[in-house]
Formats: sequence, structure tokens, C-alpha cells
Amino acid sequence: MSLLVQKYGGTSVGSVERIQAVAERVKRTVDQGHKVVVVVSAMSGETNRLIGLAKDISVQPKPRELDVLVSTGEQVTIALLCMALSEIGQEARSYTGAQAGIKTDNSYNKARIKDINTDKVMSDLDKGRVVVIAGFQGINEDGDVTTLGRGGSDTSAVAMAAALKADECQIYTDVDGVYTTDPRVVPNARKMSRITFEEMLEMASLGSKVLQIRSVEFAGKYDVTLRVLSSFTDSEGTLITKDDGDSVVEQALISGIAFNRDEAQITVLGVPDTPGIAHAIVGPVAEANIEVDMIVQNISPDNVTDFTFTVNRGDYQRTYDIVNGLAAELGATNMSGRTDIAKVSVVGVGMRSHAGIASKMFKALSKEAINILMISTSEIKISVLIDEKYLELAVRTLHDAFELDKSGNL
Amino acid sequence: MSLLVQKYGGTSVGSVERIQAVAERVKRTVDQGHKVVVVVSAMSGETNRLIGLAKDISVQPKPRELDVLVSTGEQVTIALLCMALSEIGQEARSYTGAQAGIKTDNSYNKARIKDINTDKVMSDLDKGRVVVIAGFQGINEDGDVTTLGRGGSDTSAVAMAAALKADECQIYTDVDGVYTTDPRVVPNARKMSRITFEEMLEMASLGSKVLQIRSVEFAGKYDVTLRVLSSFTDSEGTLITKDDGDSVVEQALISGIAFNRDEAQITVLGVPDTPGIAHAIVGPVAEANIEVDMIVQNISPDNVTDFTFTVNRGDYQRTYDIVNGLAAELGATNMSGRTDIAKVSVVGVGMRSHAGIASKMFKALSKEAINILMISTSEIKISVLIDEKYLELAVRTLHDAFELDKSGNL
Repeated sequence: MSLLVQKYGGTSVGSVERIQAVAERVKRTVDQGHKVVVVVSAMSGETNRLIGLAKDISVQPKPRELDVLVSTGEQVTIALLCMALSEIGQEARSYTGAQAGIKTDNSYNKARIKDINTDKVMSDLDKGRVVVIAGFQGINEDGDVTTLGRGGSDTSAVAMAAALKADECQIYTDVDGVYTTDPRVVPNARKMSRITFEEMLEMASLGSKVLQIRSVEFAGKYDVTLRVLSSFTDSEGTLITKDDGDSVVEQALISGIAFNRDEAQITVLGVPDTPGIAHAIVGPVAEANIEVDMIVQNISPDNVTDFTFTVNRGDYQRTYDIVNGLAAELGATNMSGRTDIAKVSVVGVGMRSHAGIASKMFKALSKEAINILMISTSEIKISVLIDEKYLELAVRTLHDAFELDKSGNL
Repeated sequence: MSLLVQKYGGTSVGSVERIQAVAERVKRTVDQGHKVVVVVSAMSGETNRLIGLAKDISVQPKPRELDVLVSTGEQVTIALLCMALSEIGQEARSYTGAQAGIKTDNSYNKARIKDINTDKVMSDLDKGRVVVIAGFQGINEDGDVTTLGRGGSDTSAVAMAAALKADECQIYTDVDGVYTTDPRVVPNARKMSRITFEEMLEMASLGSKVLQIRSVEFAGKYDVTLRVLSSFTDSEGTLITKDDGDSVVEQALISGIAFNRDEAQITVLGVPDTPGIAHAIVGPVAEANIEVDMIVQNISPDNVTDFTFTVNRGDYQRTYDIVNGLAAELGATNMSGRTDIAKVSVVGVGMRSHAGIASKMFKALSKEAINILMISTSEIKISVLIDEKYLELAVRTLHDAFELDKSGNL
């Protein structure tokens, strides 16, 4: 008998029929001899409907009240799912985040889980009940409702799995696993049966939006075995586990190709190459709550340098205006920016111990005459910025070059 | 400075615009120097929408889960109203029933309030905040959400007013007060400026559906001054207070004419007039959870009697079948039933100390040739059952006979 935490997202519980299908799946799991805790999101569309009501009243709704409002979305789902389980003979009990003992800090709208008291949940499981918990929400020390921010239901599930020492945390979604890249771009992209937390983090943060990134961090930190799988099929999905060393090194160098169109580039030309210059440019941007992604500063022979960085495309104009306001003060000769760019990354824990990944990547791109605008690297990924128009070609080229369509590659 | 509890029903908070109007009204009250606690219902239609979802899943949804589900309706309203108050510069804080310390028994769907811990609410009021509380809901000793049953928001408001020792509990609704009878039937029906709890109970239970009856009982028991008024006008509404003796006796005999079309009559003919006969007939009906209203047993000269009673029209067929199944066993010669009847009542604390009200009532009806089918009386009301087709005529006739259109009558 295993203890499983199953998380079902908004699409999986988007209608009465789908909630009934989830109930059937949960019951099957119980009938196979497992204890099951279910974490659910709001029915798809519901959170947006509620936020719409709030926005009709206030451009900037009070954060405390916004959490009171949107947390009702998951509360509706837990009740309906428990009814559906009862209807097919499976005893079940719903809990809001507060009732499930999920204690958070005081940051409304983006709270962090501090502690989970699992007494009630454990007691229900021991009585043979399925426990259905509202994801995305908790309670702070004042007894106020808090929410974990968009996608927080994944985090709720992983945190619950960690607190319960569950055998597996299964994230049911509308895709059947994690692919080597987006199958819409590369039709022969392969579903991976296994990936490490670190690789998943790089894949997720770079645009393969299967799992909320915080939940993967959380799973890695507390060593919760994660599985991403489809609520519409019976596939095994993709297992996300820690890097267990040798076994991985023997296998693939590269796990997948991630990409992100949501990039914009700003370049400040001819600034003096002095120690504080990076901070003088990036500091005011960060203070405006704009996240800076890639940063490159040219080597300068003559004490003058060009400084280039990227931001989310939605922040482009604001960033441009901020930097433009600084340009004179910085002593820049000119500045430029563009939004028709994209980022492509190869990701894999295997590259840690293998040289030559970067050169193989650059060679493949150059063979297709794709110019590289910027490069940034980490231990397990290499990202390049390219013209957006070459994005699909670049992803296909790299997927082929690293033979990611080959089964058994991981 | 007064402490006021204001309750706004579903229609009063039925849209973003109406919620904003409620916020304005609450702020005006605060600006007049009062402390205000607001109790709200779900936006009109929302509770039915939620129940619809539940019914799509289960004919008989689990009561515990039904409460988890429907309680989200009020939770949405409290959040939106607090946002609207903040938007116009009034600090406000929302509380669910549980957060507001409203403790109930364990009867899901029809819980009764056992205790209210007002510490948090009091502390907020002292800080100049408006407190907005979700009506209709509380928490039981297991920490489960409970609801008070339909219309329970009125009860929440009155209970909160009692616990806070509020100066007045104001029930805002879509009518501007309690009338001597339904103005749709008698156009010159007069809005009463004052009525006693007991009269209001009789008026409410007989079909003047302004206030939930339990809330009036509650207000009477804890001596909470109630006021019914419109959220769409600035009228003073109707004050509902305890009977303070002399001042009322000097005034009107009759406060109003209540009526109810929702009646059906069952007669069992020729049953032996033995001591247990009433129980033998009514017992099985009550056991089927059917509420029996009026009961009349004829005086019998020959040890044989006719037994007549009324039930809600929706329960008619079920009641008929139950009694029909008993008829042989009871030794009845026959039975009959009809649904084309209605009940008219004159209500007034004044009738306690004045004879002749009944005869005046019967005379007025007889003058219009309206036949009385059954009569039942209490200390402060006389009810008659008549053919439904005469209902409007009877109400108008009685309203005239007791001169209820005359101002200053109470």
C-alpha cells in the first residue's frame, strides 16, 4: 500500500463530467490498495471570473480580500469532488487550505507555506477516507485566508506530499508528461519517462509550462518523488526524481530543448567600462520590479563597453524608458532594443561531466546559418538568444543534433 | 455613536454596481458617526447556481460538502464589498462565519448558532474598521463549515447584533418595510412604522416574506431591535420591537392581514371519535416530515367525527397517499382533499385585550358571501381557510373593515 498525493488542475476539474471522471480515477487508485490525498484547483475559468469581479470594483483590489475571493474557487471544487466520490461509494472528506492545516506567511496573493499540521488528514486516511484538499491556499497566523499565487496548487500538492511523507506526488494535467521539447514545434519530440528536478527546473523556467517552478524546487528540496501525467489517458507520465549520480551519467547528455519567445533585448552602447556600471544599469530596472534574464557585457579594449540584457517582452517599453532616462548619466553613446528575438536552451544534467556540448550546439546552429546574439550558460544548460524567426528551425535542428527522438536516450 | 448591524440580502448585492451602492450606504452610516458591522448574503442567483452544480453530481449531495460548497457564495460577497469599501476610502475587513467566531451545532444545512466570539470583530470596530461578515454560515466544533439554511443570513445578522449588543439590527431588502398586507393585493396597504416581534412572527409565518422567521424569534428572545428597510430608497422602514404594553394597547387592535395560498386541505370522514384518533392521523404525516398547519376536529354527537387538516400544497399528494393508506385501519368512511384553498389571517397584539375581533372578521367576510372552511386562533391572530378564488376579495375586505389604511393606526 502506498500513500499517494494526486493533484488535478483546472482543466481536469473543468466541468461536472470531468470532476466525475476524476472521482472514478481516484476510486480506482483506492481500489488498487492505495491511500489517496487529492489536491485540486478551481474549475478552469473560475479564478479568472472571480478576478474579473474584483477588477470591476477596483483596479488594485486589496490583497487580503482578493485571497478571500479567489480561494472560493478551489473550495467549490473540493465539495463537488467529495460529492462525486460519495456518489460512487467512496467515502471522502473535503478540507480548505486552512482546515487542512496549511499554515503560510502573511504575504497575501503569493504566500509561502511555513508548516502543515497533518493530524486531521492522517486520521481520515486511517479511517479509509479519501481526503480532498483545496490547493493554492492556506491560512496565516492571524487566521486570514492566503493564496500561494497562480499555479500554487502544484506547490500545495508537493508540500502536502512532503508533510505526509507520501510515496509519490502525481500531478495530473492535460499533457501526458514532459517532452524533450514542444511537440507542436518538433512532431517527433519524445516523452521522457524520467527527468531530474534540476533539469525540470530549467525546462519549466524556460517555457515548458507543465509544472509550476516553485513546486519543483519544493519537491527537490524535500525529496518528493513527482510524476506528471495526464488525467485524460492512462499513460505512465514522466517521473521527476533527484539526480542519483552514476545511472544518469551513463545515459543522455541532453534531456531536452526548451525555448521562450517572451524575450526582449536592450543594449546600452559605449558606456565606460567601470566596476559599478552593471549595477548602475540593472539596479534601477530591478527596482521597478522588472526581472532581468540574460546579461552580457562585452570585453572592451578601450575602457568603453556595450552592455546587453534581456527582459520579458511585456516589460520592454518600461525597461527601455528607464534605461533611456539613465543613458546620459551613464555616459552612454547610444542605446538600442528589439523584441523580435527568442531564447533556445539545451538542458541536461549529463553536460556537467561532458565537454563539447556547447560546441555541438553552436555548430548545429551555424550549419543552418542561425546567428547567435547572446549566450549564457549554467551547469546543466546552455541558452542562446536568436532571431525569433529562426526559433522553430533552431529547436528542430538541436533536437535532431542531440538525437532526442531516440528512445532509451534517458 | 451607535453600533449598528446592517444586513444586505442577495438582491441588494446582486451585481458589482449594487455592491458599490451598498458600500456607499455603509460609508454614509460610518460618516454619521456610527460603528457598522455588515452581514451579507450571496449575490442573487449564486446559491442556486452552486446547488445546481451539486445536483448535477448527486440527487442527494452529502450535507457536509453541500455546506462547503454553498458557503462560498457569501465569501465572494464579503471580499467584493470590502474591496468596494476600500475603494471609497473606508477601511474594512471581511470575515467568513468561521473567522467571525460564529460557532454552531453539527446540523449541516440547517445549523443553529450556539455561540459567537466577538473579540476580533470588536477589535476591528475599535480601530475604525467596518467589519463585513458572511451571513448564513458558521463553524462547528470539528472545524467544519456549516450553514444555517435558506434565509439564514437574517439570523446571522440578528445573532451578531445580540452578541455585540448592537443598538439596532437593520435588515436591508428589496421592500421598504412591513406593510399591513401585500400592496399587490391591496393597493392602499400602509407601511407600518412599528410592529411587535410577535406580530411580525405571525405576519412572516403567514406569508409576508420579508424576514426569515427564525431571525425574528431570535431578535425577540435576545431583545434585538430590528428594522426592515430598503437598500434602494432612504425610507425609515419598519421598526420591529418588543411589545411594551400600554403604548400598544392604546393603539391599533389589528396590525395587518397576512395570507397564504400555499395550502391544501385533507378531510377524513366518519372516523371513530376516540382519544387517539388525532395522533393516529397526524402522526404518520409528521413522521414523513410533512408539516401540518391548521387542524380541526368536528364535535360529534354520535361517536363519529370528521377530521380536517391542512398542509403545504407541495406536500398534498404525498399526504393524501399516506392518509389514504391509513383510512381502512382508522375505520374512516371516506376521505377528501382539495388544493384550491387559501388562508387569511388578521394579526395584532391589540386583540389580546379586545373582544369582538373574530366576530368583526366573520361579519366582514359573510357580507361578501365568503364561506369560511376552517378557523384557527391564537392569542394575537385569527386565521380562516377560504376558497382560493375569494382570497384577494377577502384580504381587501378585511383591510377595509379594520381600517388599516388609516395612518397613525399603530
